[in-house]
Amino acid sequence: LSEIELIAQYFAPLANPAASFNLKDDAAFLRALPASGLVITADAVVSGVHFFSGDDPGAVAYKALAVNVSDLAAKGAKPLHYVLCLGLAEAPETAWAEAFAGGLAQAQARFGMDMLGGDTVTAGGSWWISITAFGEAGAGGTLPRSGAKPGDLLYLSGTLGDAALGLQLRLDGGLFPFLSEASRGHFLKRYLYPEPRLNLRRALPLCAHAAMDVSDGLALDLARLCEASGLGAEVSLAALPLSTGAQAVCEALPESWHIILSGGDDYEILAAVPADKGRLFERLAAEGQTRVTRIGRLLPKGDASIAPVTFLGPRGDVFTPQKPGFLHFATPPE
Amino acid sequence: LSEIELIAQYFAPLANPAASFNLKDDAAFLRALPASGLVITADAVVSGVHFFSGDDPGAVAYKALAVNVSDLAAKGAKPLHYVLCLGLAEAPETAWAEAFAGGLAQAQARFGMDMLGGDTVTAGGSWWISITAFGEAGAGGTLPRSGAKPGDLLYLSGTLGDAALGLQLRLDGGLFPFLSEASRGHFLKRYLYPEPRLNLRRALPLCAHAAMDVSDGLALDLARLCEASGLGAEVSLAALPLSTGAQAVCEALPESWHIILSGGDDYEILAAVPADKGRLFERLAAEGQTRVTRIGRLLPKGDASIAPVTFLGPRGDVFTPQKPGFLHFATPPE
Repeated sequence: LSEIELIAQYFAPLANPAASFNLKDDAAFLRALPASGLVITADAVVSGVHFFSGDDPGAVAYKALAVNVSDLAAKGAKPLHYVLCLGLAEAPETAWAEAFAGGLAQAQARFGMDMLGGDTVTAGGSWWISITAFGEAGAGGTLPRSGAKPGDLLYLSGTLGDAALGLQLRLDGGLFPFLSEASRGHFLKRYLYPEPRLNLRRALPLCAHAAMDVSDGLALDLARLCEASGLGAEVSLAALPLSTGAQAVCEALPESWHIILSGGDDYEILAAVPADKGRLFERLAAEGQTRVTRIGRLLPKGDASIAPVTFLGPRGDVFTPQKPGFLHFATPPE
Repeated sequence: LSEIELIAQYFAPLANPAASFNLKDDAAFLRALPASGLVITADAVVSGVHFFSGDDPGAVAYKALAVNVSDLAAKGAKPLHYVLCLGLAEAPETAWAEAFAGGLAQAQARFGMDMLGGDTVTAGGSWWISITAFGEAGAGGTLPRSGAKPGDLLYLSGTLGDAALGLQLRLDGGLFPFLSEASRGHFLKRYLYPEPRLNLRRALPLCAHAAMDVSDGLALDLARLCEASGLGAEVSLAALPLSTGAQAVCEALPESWHIILSGGDDYEILAAVPADKGRLFERLAAEGQTRVTRIGRLLPKGDASIAPVTFLGPRGDVFTPQKPGFLHFATPPE
């Protein structure tokens, strides 16, 4: 397919016809803007880093949009639109374009968004997708990382570590032989199909002081929240929400806690909620069919026992993650 | 430099502190949005395709932002903000980061913009920059490509082909030995430093039916404007605005017209202006210190003599460009 065919046949049907001029122009025009403001986020995914170069293009497209929507969800914003830049080493085949556009269509429908425009370019080496996503700000502000207060309860949505264990399974299919096929499938699915927690949109602005999505590992992202808020935190490993499979892995191989805490790709929401709003937060989350778990609390900086973030093991011992989390340039792309 | 150092030391000073939370969050928040609407555009540049991998990182950063601003300029929009995604094969050196951020700072100051956020990722192979830029819509609408009418005059800003000739010189320094050093320098500069025609911001919405920037060559981009408007066009080569150097090249090597018309990287504005507003357009452009030249006119589709776009040579003969213009996937990256 040529650049022109890819855009006209596969991308134009995904676009907001009026705002994007059916992708036949150089720019999009958002005439009606939300009165509450616009939340804007950007995330890129790269083959060999965020996904495997041979992964289903539909799954990759889905993940590329979902990781952006996860950032919108963490800010209590309602997804509206996105812009897509795509770098490919060579002209795509029809089957590739169908799968890729199909994954985008699936994600768009799920998240309630449409495409505004973008750019498709030749790029040697890794192929990549760079997305800028737009959401309508929630009524309660934007829940900055810096908003947490001492004494706030720390909540986490969903379960932790499944996607990181899925990545380990991708790298070595012989791992975790004791796991059921269902658990293995769950891990693998969570790696490619993050679940942005949009159903917390009511609960977060009403209850939380601060929120962010956990994408580079809880250890690193919680440290970021603590740093932005000038606080420390204490988290109990026993309180962390694990799937049945992740529980089995941690029991059989306790060193797997390092993967759970630092592996990344969770795309769960970490929220700092004042103690008197904990119950309300739990109730509103439950109404949104979203599991949230209290995992710890925020402390004045000096009170955290050793590091700004302290993870307490089952016997009250301090657990220190081997690496902080996923950082770009720390490991070369595959 | 680590990902964290690059962002904190080099990108945070470029950011809008309030809207971007000093780049310490997952999303930006635009609280005050322009009443006239937001114009949004996205363009990516890739090493080996849009620039040479060894080019000065500051020049590359400047070009990456300028090509986006050129799209805003074509829509009569005032640049406001941008989001930057950056893919690098390895951790950048300090000198690289200084040059890159310096080029961005220079471009930002020139165009009156600030950074809202972005993402920095590891990417094997080509390195790349993907930018989404935001502008305040002009009062007169957004000048879609589809707005041209039969009989409209075609205007082009600046001069044509200089950057494409600069690229030829980059590929073979022995070309055009008859040129002065000043002309060679001008070509090379135009390849890395496009000049977005923001000073047409008053003239375009007041006078033009349609406008776009010429980035993939006049032949291809004019064909796009004609297709979107359901029209044909006639352009006289003799009317095309050429720099002194480009004139010398075309006289010495008439086949260079193919490069002038299809080489791309011009980032000049092509505008369709109704005949009764031509004088006003010229006057307002002159007030904005911007050269505009009448290069032809738009015709009902059937009237165009052969192709939708007809280029007439000096003796009224039809000149047919060898290739339409720059298309991704048509040639592999270097």
